[in-house]
Amino acid sequence: MENEKMNQIIERVLILLEEKKYLKAREEILKLNEVDIAEVMEEVIDELDIDKAVVLFRSFPKNIAAEVFSYLPSDDQVNIISAITDKEIQHIVDELAFDDMIDLLEELPANVVDKILENATKAERKLINTFLNYPETSAGSLMTIDYISLRKDMTIAEAMAHIKEVGMDSETVYTCYVKDKERKLLGIVSLRTLVVAQDSDLVESYMHEDMVYVNALDDQEDVSNIFKKYGYLALPVVDNEHRLVGIITFDDILDVIDEETTEDFERMAGVIDSSDMEYLDMSVWHHIKNRIPWLFVLMCSYVITGGIIASFEGVLSKVISLVAYMPMLMGTGGNSGSQSATLVIRGMAIDDIDLSDVWRVLWKELRISFLIGILLSALNFARIIWLDQESVWVALTVSGAMLVIVIAAKTIGSMLPMAAKKVGIDPALMASPMISSLTDMVSVVTYFAMATWMLGI
Amino acid sequence: MENEKMNQIIERVLILLEEKKYLKAREEILKLNEVDIAEVMEEVIDELDIDKAVVLFRSFPKNIAAEVFSYLPSDDQVNIISAITDKEIQHIVDELAFDDMIDLLEELPANVVDKILENATKAERKLINTFLNYPETSAGSLMTIDYISLRKDMTIAEAMAHIKEVGMDSETVYTCYVKDKERKLLGIVSLRTLVVAQDSDLVESYMHEDMVYVNALDDQEDVSNIFKKYGYLALPVVDNEHRLVGIITFDDILDVIDEETTEDFERMAGVIDSSDMEYLDMSVWHHIKNRIPWLFVLMCSYVITGGIIASFEGVLSKVISLVAYMPMLMGTGGNSGSQSATLVIRGMAIDDIDLSDVWRVLWKELRISFLIGILLSALNFARIIWLDQESVWVALTVSGAMLVIVIAAKTIGSMLPMAAKKVGIDPALMASPMISSLTDMVSVVTYFAMATWMLGI
Repeated sequence: MENEKMNQIIERVLILLEEKKYLKAREEILKLNEVDIAEVMEEVIDELDIDKAVVLFRSFPKNIAAEVFSYLPSDDQVNIISAITDKEIQHIVDELAFDDMIDLLEELPANVVDKILENATKAERKLINTFLNYPETSAGSLMTIDYISLRKDMTIAEAMAHIKEVGMDSETVYTCYVKDKERKLLGIVSLRTLVVAQDSDLVESYMHEDMVYVNALDDQEDVSNIFKKYGYLALPVVDNEHRLVGIITFDDILDVIDEETTEDFERMAGVIDSSDMEYLDMSVWHHIKNRIPWLFVLMCSYVITGGIIASFEGVLSKVISLVAYMPMLMGTGGNSGSQSATLVIRGMAIDDIDLSDVWRVLWKELRISFLIGILLSALNFARIIWLDQESVWVALTVSGAMLVIVIAAKTIGSMLPMAAKKVGIDPALMASPMISSLTDMVSVVTYFAMATWMLGI
Repeated sequence: MENEKMNQIIERVLILLEEKKYLKAREEILKLNEVDIAEVMEEVIDELDIDKAVVLFRSFPKNIAAEVFSYLPSDDQVNIISAITDKEIQHIVDELAFDDMIDLLEELPANVVDKILENATKAERKLINTFLNYPETSAGSLMTIDYISLRKDMTIAEAMAHIKEVGMDSETVYTCYVKDKERKLLGIVSLRTLVVAQDSDLVESYMHEDMVYVNALDDQEDVSNIFKKYGYLALPVVDNEHRLVGIITFDDILDVIDEETTEDFERMAGVIDSSDMEYLDMSVWHHIKNRIPWLFVLMCSYVITGGIIASFEGVLSKVISLVAYMPMLMGTGGNSGSQSATLVIRGMAIDDIDLSDVWRVLWKELRISFLIGILLSALNFARIIWLDQESVWVALTVSGAMLVIVIAAKTIGSMLPMAAKKVGIDPALMASPMISSLTDMVSVVTYFAMATWMLGI
């Protein structure tokens, strides 16, 4: 759907709702697919109010309501849940795909969850509780139990008949899973293979036994890397006894990739990451809570830098013009370090760079920084002599410091993220803000030490 | 495949190849799937040499060779192509999926491309040339022509028979495309629907006509956003006359997402992005070429900052201790601005923030920065009075400047990316390095103006 067409529909629906023409609005909205309906509902909640959205939502057919519900952001879901009756909640929960239901239950307050679980059978309750206990960023929290399982002694015709029967309730029918009596995963077979195969053959003869699988406790970042590597539609999830406990489909991974990338971006900017909250939905206090810690820590590091400068006050007061070059040296040091840090952090995130590449990276950065440093130093030397008309000694101090600072900054910038990974800290935490405050310290020491020595004061 | 098992196999293959036991190595390697074989081949090329890899590669069965080839990085592909005979090249090209072939042709030198095209029919040559002419980051450059097309007057049984026949050569069989005689796209139908449907029904009655599609000239970033939004397996690609020209499958989008994210990271760190080159594969000169431009531009901006400082030399020489607080003010300003810039840039990239939200963002950042500014100012005031034992006037100058700087930095950091987007510049270019050099300028002016005024010098 093109954006413009969508915006027109949203516009129309909002006007109809303001005029309380609910039936017309419902008619307009039900022409769309569920993803787009969810987008319209979000706009209704943002632009008008939750009550109008709830009236509209209640008017949807049950199955559409449940699917639209699954595409809403979790705060809107909780708002709708608290505005409708228990019976309506039950209807939605019954219609939701298993993984969407688990996501919902994780967001709801405990008393609502209890109410929902009251109506479940004992076996269902047990299963749901198992799922709720997987760590939030584990493969287990992403998986669904709605998959097609086959036996290896089925014929292709039997398998196809089985798929025909249960296919519509499965998350995917395109990969089917073969289990033994102990629910252990034996192999996988794709629907493509089944469709092309002879009806009388056995599933066994078409099944892949060397399939790629993940453990329920694996981290979601590792799972998404496997999806990226192999390009599969779905991956089976097993427990420690190699029993098949669920599957993860690629559409859930697209969300994970976005989440993990946002987390990296936030950490690299010195912001505490807050899982799946949107910028605009987060309160001012929440934003402050996420930003103050690193600002404070880094500010404290500048107390040291300040102290270093104070200890050089003697040099400074004699050649006050040195101060004017400080921001350039510190800024260029910070930027050089950030470039290297970002490239190395990203390289490690997408598996281009391994911890074992540390010497290759260092050797590359040393050559790069030496050449860049020489060039920037020469430019500065020329500028200080000819444009600023300062003494050769000042020019030598500044350009000498520049060379040392660029080399130091790129070394720190490339090595710190690798060191962090080595000791098990997220390399993304060693990005711009952290690197800049370190290189600032190095810059100041280098600059003033060089000044003291060069100018012979 | 777990990493450890994979590393053992790589280890074994490398040893076998060094001992020139090619057959044993081949046997070992052919136990793996094609993605993993490609990974082993990469290691062989990196750790041993291209010749050994070529010998091994030539020993693979034709169809496996082609698929392994498609998973290799493009520089390794070019190396292999230049080491094998024209006939072998032809074999690989024939076996490759259409989109992988186009990717290969794009990377190869013109004379090799000509040689390959010599053996193609006139119709094939025309088609290939059309594909080669799509812009590098367009939907057209991602698509494949290997899809299943159906007619609307086919029965389900006829459709299934057709899929059985051509299914193995298609990129995906899970979504089928219904075209009319003019090749215009009428609708889509999923294999799931076909499998569950009655044999005697017509395709027409199951086909979705309000499908989501993209234009061949759409940017790949927009295409990947549509995949993220809808979670589809594949999207049809049409030309301006709504004729179906190809399809894009989700596995190609996973690569696009990684590429676009890396581009954002690089731009946000002031590095010129270089499409799909890996860090370690890029020469020192290439790295320098990507990093120097921004370092140089930003360094020049510090000439202005330096000039500002020089113009305040009078104040400075009287209260030399002011210099010691400069790095802290500049650093905190830069960090505050980067936090806001990163959150806003990322928010816009994943569609959480719209250009129309500009006032909501500004109002939020103003409140956040005011409160953070007050807190950091108070802390500094206390420290300067009690720990540094400076005068109240120095403390007031520093903490007053801190408040103004944090507010200014967060305003600049949040608004500049939005302004960039408004005028059609990539917001990612307005990140850390750019914001820091701007806030540094603001910091210096604020600080010294405040000092001149407060200290009444």
